[in-house]
Amino acid sequence: MARKRRKRYHAPGTQPGTLAAHAEAGNAPVRVTSFRYDASRCEEGAVSLSEISSLSPPEGGVLWLDVCGLSDPSVVRAIGDRFRIHSLALEDVLNVPQRPKVEWYDDHLLVVLSEIRYPGSPEQMAFLLTDRVVVSFQERPGDAFEPVRERLRQGKGRVRAEGGDFLLYSLCDAVLDAFFPTLERLGDEVEEMEERVLVSPVPETFLAIRRLRRELLAVRHAVWPARDALNQLLIEENALIRPGTKVFFRDCYDHTIQLMDMVETFREMASGLVDEYMSAVSNRMNEIMKVLTVMATIFIPLTFIVGLYGMNFDTKASSYNMPELGWAYGYPALLLLMAAVAGGMLCYFRRKRWI
Amino acid sequence: MARKRRKRYHAPGTQPGTLAAHAEAGNAPVRVTSFRYDASRCEEGAVSLSEISSLSPPEGGVLWLDVCGLSDPSVVRAIGDRFRIHSLALEDVLNVPQRPKVEWYDDHLLVVLSEIRYPGSPEQMAFLLTDRVVVSFQERPGDAFEPVRERLRQGKGRVRAEGGDFLLYSLCDAVLDAFFPTLERLGDEVEEMEERVLVSPVPETFLAIRRLRRELLAVRHAVWPARDALNQLLIEENALIRPGTKVFFRDCYDHTIQLMDMVETFREMASGLVDEYMSAVSNRMNEIMKVLTVMATIFIPLTFIVGLYGMNFDTKASSYNMPELGWAYGYPALLLLMAAVAGGMLCYFRRKRWI
Amino acid sequence: MARKRRKRYHAPGTQPGTLAAHAEAGNAPVRVTSFRYDASRCEEGAVSLSEISSLSPPEGGVLWLDVCGLSDPSVVRAIGDRFRIHSLALEDVLNVPQRPKVEWYDDHLLVVLSEIRYPGSPEQMAFLLTDRVVVSFQERPGDAFEPVRERLRQGKGRVRAEGGDFLLYSLCDAVLDAFFPTLERLGDEVEEMEERVLVSPVPETFLAIRRLRRELLAVRHAVWPARDALNQLLIEENALIRPGTKVFFRDCYDHTIQLMDMVETFREMASGLVDEYMSAVSNRMNEIMKVLTVMATIFIPLTFIVGLYGMNFDTKASSYNMPELGWAYGYPALLLLMAAVAGGMLCYFRRKRWI
Amino acid sequence: MARKRRKRYHAPGTQPGTLAAHAEAGNAPVRVTSFRYDASRCEEGAVSLSEISSLSPPEGGVLWLDVCGLSDPSVVRAIGDRFRIHSLALEDVLNVPQRPKVEWYDDHLLVVLSEIRYPGSPEQMAFLLTDRVVVSFQERPGDAFEPVRERLRQGKGRVRAEGGDFLLYSLCDAVLDAFFPTLERLGDEVEEMEERVLVSPVPETFLAIRRLRRELLAVRHAVWPARDALNQLLIEENALIRPGTKVFFRDCYDHTIQLMDMVETFREMASGLVDEYMSAVSNRMNEIMKVLTVMATIFIPLTFIVGLYGMNFDTKASSYNMPELGWAYGYPALLLLMAAVAGGMLCYFRRKRWI
Amino acid sequence: MARKRRKRYHAPGTQPGTLAAHAEAGNAPVRVTSFRYDASRCEEGAVSLSEISSLSPPEGGVLWLDVCGLSDPSVVRAIGDRFRIHSLALEDVLNVPQRPKVEWYDDHLLVVLSEIRYPGSPEQMAFLLTDRVVVSFQERPGDAFEPVRERLRQGKGRVRAEGGDFLLYSLCDAVLDAFFPTLERLGDEVEEMEERVLVSPVPETFLAIRRLRRELLAVRHAVWPARDALNQLLIEENALIRPGTKVFFRDCYDHTIQLMDMVETFREMASGLVDEYMSAVSNRMNEIMKVLTVMATIFIPLTFIVGLYGMNFDTKASSYNMPELGWAYGYPALLLLMAAVAGGMLCYFRRKRWI
Repeated sequence: MARKRRKRYHAPGTQPGTLAAHAEAGNAPVRVTSFRYDASRCEEGAVSLSEISSLSPPEGGVLWLDVCGLSDPSVVRAIGDRFRIHSLALEDVLNVPQRPKVEWYDDHLLVVLSEIRYPGSPEQMAFLLTDRVVVSFQERPGDAFEPVRERLRQGKGRVRAEGGDFLLYSLCDAVLDAFFPTLERLGDEVEEMEERVLVSPVPETFLAIRRLRRELLAVRHAVWPARDALNQLLIEENALIRPGTKVFFRDCYDHTIQLMDMVETFREMASGLVDEYMSAVSNRMNEIMKVLTVMATIFIPLTFIVGLYGMNFDTKASSYNMPELGWAYGYPALLLLMAAVAGGMLCYFRRKRWI
Repeated sequence: MARKRRKRYHAPGTQPGTLAAHAEAGNAPVRVTSFRYDASRCEEGAVSLSEISSLSPPEGGVLWLDVCGLSDPSVVRAIGDRFRIHSLALEDVLNVPQRPKVEWYDDHLLVVLSEIRYPGSPEQMAFLLTDRVVVSFQERPGDAFEPVRERLRQGKGRVRAEGGDFLLYSLCDAVLDAFFPTLERLGDEVEEMEERVLVSPVPETFLAIRRLRRELLAVRHAVWPARDALNQLLIEENALIRPGTKVFFRDCYDHTIQLMDMVETFREMASGLVDEYMSAVSNRMNEIMKVLTVMATIFIPLTFIVGLYGMNFDTKASSYNMPELGWAYGYPALLLLMAAVAGGMLCYFRRKRWI
Repeated sequence: MARKRRKRYHAPGTQPGTLAAHAEAGNAPVRVTSFRYDASRCEEGAVSLSEISSLSPPEGGVLWLDVCGLSDPSVVRAIGDRFRIHSLALEDVLNVPQRPKVEWYDDHLLVVLSEIRYPGSPEQMAFLLTDRVVVSFQERPGDAFEPVRERLRQGKGRVRAEGGDFLLYSLCDAVLDAFFPTLERLGDEVEEMEERVLVSPVPETFLAIRRLRRELLAVRHAVWPARDALNQLLIEENALIRPGTKVFFRDCYDHTIQLMDMVETFREMASGLVDEYMSAVSNRMNEIMKVLTVMATIFIPLTFIVGLYGMNFDTKASSYNMPELGWAYGYPALLLLMAAVAGGMLCYFRRKRWI
Repeated sequence: MARKRRKRYHAPGTQPGTLAAHAEAGNAPVRVTSFRYDASRCEEGAVSLSEISSLSPPEGGVLWLDVCGLSDPSVVRAIGDRFRIHSLALEDVLNVPQRPKVEWYDDHLLVVLSEIRYPGSPEQMAFLLTDRVVVSFQERPGDAFEPVRERLRQGKGRVRAEGGDFLLYSLCDAVLDAFFPTLERLGDEVEEMEERVLVSPVPETFLAIRRLRRELLAVRHAVWPARDALNQLLIEENALIRPGTKVFFRDCYDHTIQLMDMVETFREMASGLVDEYMSAVSNRMNEIMKVLTVMATIFIPLTFIVGLYGMNFDTKASSYNMPELGWAYGYPALLLLMAAVAGGMLCYFRRKRWI
Repeated sequence: MARKRRKRYHAPGTQPGTLAAHAEAGNAPVRVTSFRYDASRCEEGAVSLSEISSLSPPEGGVLWLDVCGLSDPSVVRAIGDRFRIHSLALEDVLNVPQRPKVEWYDDHLLVVLSEIRYPGSPEQMAFLLTDRVVVSFQERPGDAFEPVRERLRQGKGRVRAEGGDFLLYSLCDAVLDAFFPTLERLGDEVEEMEERVLVSPVPETFLAIRRLRRELLAVRHAVWPARDALNQLLIEENALIRPGTKVFFRDCYDHTIQLMDMVETFREMASGLVDEYMSAVSNRMNEIMKVLTVMATIFIPLTFIVGLYGMNFDTKASSYNMPELGWAYGYPALLLLMAAVAGGMLCYFRRKRWI
């Protein structure tokens, strides 16, 4: 996830409200599915571009337009025309990735969320809510909405009995719930890394920590504004979201706080990992230095001593010149001396806890 | 405490308000005890699942349902049905661990706290307050409520004379009070670590600091939102909490501030420990380097000198070739020279305060 | 961009509202172009200093004065006199660089933005809005307004059908849109640097990171106050900005949030680069130390051994004096011994993963 | 000051409002002094436990009960009974140390401050204010109130002419003023440490910095909440504090801001000291490494050279075998060569600025 | 500037509102100058202590008392008596240095600012504003007010046509404008230091960075509260500052924001300098280590080899004992071998980019 940074801007100077497919939108066909339901039934059907202009929610029920793919701006334009959506809202739907946000227009509402699922790359989920109509836009097939669709089809839970605001809640909740397994996986990786950083403090480990931190940062950038957006939904008085549904959005908001809690905990742990890596590296360095120092300091005096008796002073010139060389037990005595020096050193190092 | 990270999410796509036992809830039987009391008496008794639907507070008195164990969702569901609790509140009770929080519903109130006691792992404590009824949920036997129960049984203090809101306060206060000994212990550990980091800056010490920081982080994550939740209780106008009881909740809120103060102080101290550890490690390194440098720089010139007189230039070829070797006092003079070099070095190092 | 810090102050003690050219304003002539338009037409024309006093918007239309260059204070003064602009507003126009801001005066409005385009240095863009009149000031030729001018000339989009507030929005939007390519380039550089820091952690890389961080800081200083300024435009009730246009300014505000998001992400990445650089440097150091240690510790004992048998003890003085020298297989045995010592060392180092 | 961390909690589960002496309260007798004064006179007298219940302020005047020592809860209880003080307020008086705070009860007010004077350990000062009555509680003899008592006795200043709120202000002001000399001393220590850290970067210096930072942290923990508490006094509308006295409390509040300013400046300086210590340590390390490197790199080639001519190749076997040994000027030439090598090295190191 | 920390407290226990000269106030005589002006004229004159009690603004005009020197509290007391200034305000005037602030009294206003000019030490500037009277207090001769005095004398600009609030603005503006050159100089120093830190990362450079950071901190402590104070002036409804003058104070406030912007930028740059210094030091260390390692690792094997052939094995005892010594080309072959070893090492190091 989030490996590749996505560009996020239209050409500077583009006229505001211009609807154009995003450069990376690909050209897979756009698939639009409609769910027309009320408490007693639910009709599901594919919708073609030309049918959009005649769509309407069933009497007393709700229409959900489930749009998959953003390659064809004309679909978005048709939906915008049909339900009188503000051109800036439509622009935000097409210009992925937007920051998660909620925007109020006169009689409709735009909710943008970011979905980060494992495995896969982040995907923008946009929702439009007007009176009894919900339109959801996703970038590519595969989403977290299947349980919601299933509940609609089978009439389980209260989703069919409630209005469009409850459907909007159900979809938002599904997107946010999908963060939990991703975060749990990242949490597992952080914990795994804590072992690794001590066992093998190699540059690869450092890179893995870096990658982990970046992924946590990506999740943070997706969740933090979602939290703000949901909070805004809660505090703003509005006819589109009924008070009874607000209790559910509050639950949703609560989930984002829990997510932030997890993200921040993992981020703090991951940032501690850098310290630990540095500490482990410097411990290694210490260990290496100790070995070098112990070896060098033991042998340096010994090497001096043997060098001493390698000198060629003429023992015959005077009896002061290296008489030791001529002693009967000179060599064994010297060996003993050197053993004592080395032993003394070792004791000293042991006492210092270097070895 | 807090050694093992706990998973905190239900399966993505779960229908909101679904009541299911948490994966780690175990299957110990759920034990429900009722305390029905008013100013003059207190009846205590075990309650079976079937009896829940007929429970009610005594005339003019208060009913406390003390639920221990979350393995059986049907108990929670029965309580929810009996007292008309919102399904999201019941879901929060079962989905441990929730973040500490207060949630207002139409005519009831959910308080979630986290209890961290030593020894043991964190435990979610949830409280429901409706008119004259308090329900407390804990994950497993063993809690901080025993003094409250004793006061109820013996009619000590004002708890029996007051309403359900005062009981709620007493229970919250008991949970928060249990943090103090835990924090004191962590404070003791931080202080103990301050000695240790200087005496033995080994990787084990670093790991112990890391563990300590993580435990402080866990306490922080439990106390910080509890503070917010209690503040919300204080500022929100509400019929469930009477003004007279708010004074007590303010005291409770005050305790959370004191707890945060302690946590932040210990955290700052613990974070200083990392610096100290690094500094101690680098002091060690310095010491090692000094020994190596002193040994090497003293013996390197000496070794050169003895090497010099180990050369085999033919003294007979010319009188310029190493005439020293033939001098009568060549060897003693050389020994003196080397002693002088070593002594000079030692003086230099002493002046530099390296030895 | 932002390589050279610009001085930003007038002489201390200058009388407030004094209009003087900035020291770095140069003396290129000031070029003033007027666009007088309404829904049906648009007249474009150069305006001389003397014509300014008689300028007025067309009946029911809008006048845009597009001022390029700040070297001549008399132009600014003439505009100020003609449209009764507050002297402090005029001073801010001339005293570049101002911090991006919005300032309300009785019946007019000053908007100051900073444009950072790649390549080039930052440039102050100031806008004055009064009833049906917009005046824009830029420091030098070359701007992001060309698409807006084109839309005015050709009557594309809604800009001609709307009032001066919409033109102001269009110009602000053009300035802010120009940040995106600059930021994308900085983002690319950050990513490129991430490779480089691992491959060649040399001081030049460190300097490049420093430069990058400073450029991000410059963008931050331009965008952050712009965000605040736009927010102020949105919340303040005012006759100059109509509610319908506020929706567009909200979109603009949204862009600044997106920009901040990008800046902060890049800044966090860039700040991580410093850690990585330090870590890479210390890894290098480790590697060097390892090579030194391995070489030294292998050869130090060997050198001692060969020194030992270079001693000149008199083998004839006694049979205890270095009898090994006279053994038939002494030399080959010693070579084997030394090979064994070296081999043992190598095994030890391999086991320690040093080589 | 603040050397020993003080425990701050009562036994978990203690009934709220329980009045018990703190574990460290000692058993020195509690001394209560009353000051009954109005504009014209001031009666001072010792008060015994039994007299408390009949105490009252003089007609139109003020009663100050000056309580010294917290070892006897019955004194606190008697005062509470006499002036109808809330049991939680009394509990806060006894449970030292509380966080500095202001608590409003129906018709009285609790102010808790912490006094940190040099030398000595922190002490809790609690004040109760009801209509025309001020009660002050301190933990042990010795306080900053003597100038206030003197002013009361001699009728200097306006304290006798004003009400209880002004006395409360005078006492709070005295407590806060006592922080200034303590902070100045800490500031002096920080400055002294700045010299020391450069001259002798030894572990003892690091420990002294640590101690200093902890003392600053203790002052911060005493002043920061005092600031909040005073601010709350200022903003809350209340009959106990008259507007005319609020001007004085504002001055008091201003002092806490000045104190915070000083604390934060010293803290920033002290935190810079850690960096400086680390930098000084690493400079030392550098110096040591340089000496080692210079010595080693100069002598290593020389030692090789002398070793070369210590080889025993048989010069008689062929004229290719070390003919230098037989040259007439071989030895002097070699000495020159080695001098040249050493000199070249020294030049190189000088150019690199290592020596 | 700000080299020497100034004590800031009066003796603890001092009666509030006591007017006494500050310990460092010196005893230079206090010089009071009056400017009595209206739109048509301006009278300037020295004022003696006895004249103060009879001073008054001209009919419909403004009186400015320009007080230079704080050594004589009786001057301050006389001014306070004449214009009925609150004693706490007078105390703040004398007790330098106060934190920059604005304090409202019933019918007058105290503004305290801090002036930091280069070269020189910080100086407190206090202003009192009552109806048509402005009193300014400065600690010593030399200020930024000369241009304001000149404008008063010559009637330039609007200062003479406006009231006392405009004069107050003009004086505040002059004080704040004086920060800009100081900050520019600090900015230049920061940039200069950026070169220096790379070229000569010696402890002196580190000290210079430290000094620079402290000076920036001092400016920050002067500007930050000034910003808050001016903001308070703007938002508080008050008869002393007319709406028309508020526009000018807003400009002043804007300058403090620009100043903060500059301070924060320089602080961020200066704090980056510490990282760069550390990085430069560690690069140096690396370089030194490389030289040592290259020298040591090249010569260590060579020294071993020459040691090997310095051994004294008896070549006559057997033909296995060092037959190389007797070979005709043994010595040249060995020299070649050693050259090969050294060359191989050099290649290896070059490939590793160590040399």
